[in-house]
Amino acid sequence: MTSPTPIAAGATVADVGEFGLIAELTARFEQGTAVYVGPGDDGAVLRTPKGHVVVSTDLLVENRHFRRDWASATDVGHRAAAQNLSDVNAMGGRTTGLTVGLVLPADLPAQWVLDLADGIAAEAGLVGASVIGGDITRGSEVVIAVTVLGECAVAPVLRSGAGAGDVLAICGRQGWAAAGLAVLGRGFRSPRAVVEAHQRPEPPYDAGPAAAQAGATSMIDVSDGLVADVGHIATSSGVAIDVWSTAFTIDEPLTAVGAALGVDPMQFVLGGGEDHPLVATFPAGTTLPDGFRQIGTVAAGAGVTVDGEAYAGETGWTHF
Amino acid sequence: MTSPTPIAAGATVADVGEFGLIAELTARFEQGTAVYVGPGDDGAVLRTPKGHVVVSTDLLVENRHFRRDWASATDVGHRAAAQNLSDVNAMGGRTTGLTVGLVLPADLPAQWVLDLADGIAAEAGLVGASVIGGDITRGSEVVIAVTVLGECAVAPVLRSGAGAGDVLAICGRQGWAAAGLAVLGRGFRSPRAVVEAHQRPEPPYDAGPAAAQAGATSMIDVSDGLVADVGHIATSSGVAIDVWSTAFTIDEPLTAVGAALGVDPMQFVLGGGEDHPLVATFPAGTTLPDGFRQIGTVAAGAGVTVDGEAYAGETGWTHF
Repeated sequence: MTSPTPIAAGATVADVGEFGLIAELTARFEQGTAVYVGPGDDGAVLRTPKGHVVVSTDLLVENRHFRRDWASATDVGHRAAAQNLSDVNAMGGRTTGLTVGLVLPADLPAQWVLDLADGIAAEAGLVGASVIGGDITRGSEVVIAVTVLGECAVAPVLRSGAGAGDVLAICGRQGWAAAGLAVLGRGFRSPRAVVEAHQRPEPPYDAGPAAAQAGATSMIDVSDGLVADVGHIATSSGVAIDVWSTAFTIDEPLTAVGAALGVDPMQFVLGGGEDHPLVATFPAGTTLPDGFRQIGTVAAGAGVTVDGEAYAGETGWTHF
Repeated sequence: MTSPTPIAAGATVADVGEFGLIAELTARFEQGTAVYVGPGDDGAVLRTPKGHVVVSTDLLVENRHFRRDWASATDVGHRAAAQNLSDVNAMGGRTTGLTVGLVLPADLPAQWVLDLADGIAAEAGLVGASVIGGDITRGSEVVIAVTVLGECAVAPVLRSGAGAGDVLAICGRQGWAAAGLAVLGRGFRSPRAVVEAHQRPEPPYDAGPAAAQAGATSMIDVSDGLVADVGHIATSSGVAIDVWSTAFTIDEPLTAVGAALGVDPMQFVLGGGEDHPLVATFPAGTTLPDGFRQIGTVAAGAGVTVDGEAYAGETGWTHF
């Protein structure tokens, strides 16, 4: 396989960027016959001798993905688990087991770690999943590495199956976590509803398997930002997707935050991530599963538009 | 479930220690019916709707588990994969897929990351496994979080099945990595053979499945230290194990390092980890699989002895 993006000698990680590095790494990892879905989707699916297992992994680093003064350890645990469970959900699967790797400073209170673990276990318990292993070691900053394994009742739903004529639908709250992050970033603790939405997202765990059963052609959870993540579907599927901003009512707390911070609250909806709703495409005429509502259309072409126009706002989150 | 070791208010991670924390965490993670082997063994086994998948995860932190001036990125990649593949090997399984989470400083050369990935993929390729997913984020120090998934042709071999009368056997090199670490720690780069053994261990990947087929009653890979890891079998199985030091010939480079550093080279064999040989127990009279040789005996009782006596040397590695 060839390198998709030549990397200059002496380039740093910051030079290449997250997606460049992932593309580079993906290009050089050959996929064996045991692999049903490799890198590039919400989860990876490995053929076991009999059946499938869905796998996904995510890292949280202190002061980057969470701050100990902004959220309790239990909240951080809930969030660490939720964002991983949500990846399995977005494949149409249900998580059965998690592994948790923890890098911990030696002077970290042990109770913080126990509370973290409680949060992880409690969130996992929402779908009947267990923490089945892990590793602990010392380091200079807290890192939480969660890997989830799950199962699918029907074939996993990938990002790549959307077709022209499909409808775009969403299930779950969108924009609240971004509003919560915005107020925390200004030193505020209210409105509580959006702060709590950031501290402890509530992904719609039943919706993924339901969407798979209903024949979803593609699916993703919103973690980078709505427009950014819809863009991942558009790119993987080779289609154009138009998002209808008019399909979203701006919930009251988002209006309040927007007014307080001088920001158009629609930015939280279109650019925000970390609420982990599901966005899926379905063939036209499909009866959408409970909780899903249409927010756009799929057509031949490429790229994402909002109300038929290019989107000029922030599309998501960049790690480097 | 109850907490096995009460943790004092205000205690730090250092106060509680690695094993205390793991015990605490394990006690509070309930195991669902999908779990065949939960925390506490080399790998976890999850029932999928059909068949099993073996899972294990390990973290490597820069300047703690590796130093960039002591080993190339490719070597670090080989080692990161090897120590995880070895955990599946120690269950009698074969790894089919890996996920790799990377925490990276922004100023890290991108090439270092690519070389690391090459090393991981190459080592995984030795058993036909593929890197099937991962995550990359920024942080202040390099962290490598590897999770492996594998399959077993027969039932997984746990740490807990050793019985009185069994023979204790080993397959693979033991003590070389510890000797290599000792010379690197003194600022030397030779003997090359032991330095390379530390930089790039060579676990006996065929031996795990072979031992399972031959009816091994328990198995572990030596990663903490020979006496320490045999101790894990003794504790889990509720037996006493005697290790025969006379069963080990001290290889020439270990003799040379011992002489140069003024250390009894048997310490590398009995206390050293990170070569990742397999130690297994078999019923008396079993024809040992290729590469295994007897190094001790199992009896009723508790604990580990060396040549019938308590072992006074370093037994392994403590993270806190």
